Amino acid sequence: MVVGRDPLELLITSSGKDKSALGRDDFVRVDAAGRVVDGGPGRTSSAETLLHCAIAELVPSVGAVLHTHSVWGTLLSGADLGRGSVRIEGYEMLKGLEGVRTHETSVEVPVFANTQDMTALAAQIRERFAGLDWSASRPPVHGFLLARHGLYTWGRDLAEARRHVEIHEFLFECVARSRMLPGPRA
Amino acid sequence: MVVGRDPLELLITSSGKDKSALGRDDFVRVDAAGRVVDGGPGRTSSAETLLHCAIAELVPSVGAVLHTHSVWGTLLSGADLGRGSVRIEGYEMLKGLEGVRTHETSVEVPVFANTQDMTALAAQIRERFAGLDWSASRPPVHGFLLARHGLYTWGRDLAEARRHVEIHEFLFECVARSRMLPGPRA
Amino acid sequence: MVVGRDPLELLITSSGKDKSALGRDDFVRVDAAGRVVDGGPGRTSSAETLLHCAIAELVPSVGAVLHTHSVWGTLLSGADLGRGSVRIEGYEMLKGLEGVRTHETSVEVPVFANTQDMTALAAQIRERFAGLDWSASRPPVHGFLLARHGLYTWGRDLAEARRHVEIHEFLFECVARSRMLPGPRA
Amino acid sequence: MVVGRDPLELLITSSGKDKSALGRDDFVRVDAAGRVVDGGPGRTSSAETLLHCAIAELVPSVGAVLHTHSVWGTLLSGADLGRGSVRIEGYEMLKGLEGVRTHETSVEVPVFANTQDMTALAAQIRERFAGLDWSASRPPVHGFLLARHGLYTWGRDLAEARRHVEIHEFLFECVARSRMLPGPRA
Repeated sequence: MVVGRDPLELLITSSGKDKSALGRDDFVRVDAAGRVVDGGPGRTSSAETLLHCAIAELVPSVGAVLHTHSVWGTLLSGADLGRGSVRIEGYEMLKGLEGVRTHETSVEVPVFANTQDMTALAAQIRERFAGLDWSASRPPVHGFLLARHGLYTWGRDLAEARRHVEIHEFLFECVARSRMLPGPRA
Repeated sequence: MVVGRDPLELLITSSGKDKSALGRDDFVRVDAAGRVVDGGPGRTSSAETLLHCAIAELVPSVGAVLHTHSVWGTLLSGADLGRGSVRIEGYEMLKGLEGVRTHETSVEVPVFANTQDMTALAAQIRERFAGLDWSASRPPVHGFLLARHGLYTWGRDLAEARRHVEIHEFLFECVARSRMLPGPRA
Repeated sequence: MVVGRDPLELLITSSGKDKSALGRDDFVRVDAAGRVVDGGPGRTSSAETLLHCAIAELVPSVGAVLHTHSVWGTLLSGADLGRGSVRIEGYEMLKGLEGVRTHETSVEVPVFANTQDMTALAAQIRERFAGLDWSASRPPVHGFLLARHGLYTWGRDLAEARRHVEIHEFLFECVARSRMLPGPRA
Repeated sequence: MVVGRDPLELLITSSGKDKSALGRDDFVRVDAAGRVVDGGPGRTSSAETLLHCAIAELVPSVGAVLHTHSVWGTLLSGADLGRGSVRIEGYEMLKGLEGVRTHETSVEVPVFANTQDMTALAAQIRERFAGLDWSASRPPVHGFLLARHGLYTWGRDLAEARRHVEIHEFLFECVARSRMLPGPRA
């Protein structure tokens, strides 16, 4: 969650927590460089903090960033890394993405190669996002995938970010399964 | 839900609500033309109101109309749009559809191309439904699909409409998966 | 549930009930011929009562009979109807079937063609079951499938019948999915 | 659970219990040879006790051992028995295994042929594990599969063992499904 804008501050999960049992003390505040600003000794933020910071800086009006590890996201991102993105086209559910008004559209979800070097990855994301036009009523992207890793998506608030998770994950499953589905038998 | 018949009135979900957290105030009443009749300022009905109205008008004794977005419905409707319908044949579960008394039957679930033009789509549905015989003990159709979008189904009351959702969705999964299943190894 | 043995009486779901919301009054008692013995006017037993009666008569020590409609049971029974049975071989989970002591075995789950003629179907089951040896410590069958319909299974009590549902359904999914799974990439 | 180290004692599920309804009295204590040490008459430990004992003896610092029967573990272990192991490579989720620090790695999950001879199987496991280097910061294996049977995994405590179940099962599903997924359509 973005909890401050000037200067930028995020509230983010502490490192190594069981995500199914998070409590009040399992979050830390970090600054734009990903440094913990409210930590006592030993409190560290999630390894992927820098990606959250990059998104919060680059995407206008972002209020929350979510990261998921799903089976279909993991598979599709691996299969489509060579293309550089997963194409999602013609689905009504695309309208669940902020600013999308019709199913007659194509969304390309960027896929980045996975790496443990968060600084390099954040730089790649900054570079790719800086080249996009964020001023239109429809944002150029609503999320991205790390190959064989998972999804990052966001929204103006937590509810929108959660909706974007649900939309992306539903569509990943549709895209993947549709590749395996034969047409009707004659 | 059909809440009045003369004149026709429906109670329908307001636009843009989280369907997993609907409360008393998240529904509006609309007339046969889809106009909100109980709304204060800013209350609008679901974008697909006209389809609900068309169904409520055309299908005798309908008391409730439901619309779902499932993975299998999305996939099958995309795969079978060219045929114009999804054929479901020989399954016992077909007997869950009102008026169906034996598995030895074939049901064709119409598939319409998806569109954002609800007026045009409602007209298409009216045309197709007007040509059907609704006087027999077995209704000619119990639902239809919008391609890569989802299912509309209905019933005399909410319980029957829910049962029709469950039956259609189960059968969509069976039809889709059976296309992928090889026979027993010799 | 078998509630009497001499004469045979079963407690069975009433016809047309929502199986997810059964209460005390949603069951009726029937005799060996499937006639309701405790019903007021209008109380009728499930359409498939005769199959439950046939099983209760033919299978020694049966205390409960369960019937399920699952996706995998529906698919496999359709795919393997021509063979006359679904073969399940070499799975540890087979040991969940009463009397099975090792995975090094093969179980053939009979598949009967589906029909709405319960008298004829019950006769077929009687004929097939009467030819089996029920005196051994391992029962010859623990369940059967109706093609594109579902599973019948049973046990000495409800807990065992439920375990047999769980075991069969798990194994149906394994058998079906294993037909679709390629081996490891070299 | 390892409840004593000198001499080794494990707390283990009693034989034949419904795993979804375990209570305080459904566990027994066993010694290193798998003999029940706190049992009254008729209390016996799970058939696979010897495997738990072998793991507890051979794997340094193990505090808990878990055994699961999942569809994907059952399928993959059957498909890859010929190779002798399931290879899992390049997934971020591998970092959920203790000591794994990067996705750029390959994990081989050993697959043993299933058998009802627990003494022979425990000996095989001892032999294979004794040849591994357990002194490095990354353990050589975190679990193994019995073909068409299921997973054994462990951890320093129950939470880590549960995490290893979750990680293995997620990755089994990814590996199996990725074999069935075609790439993007051109």
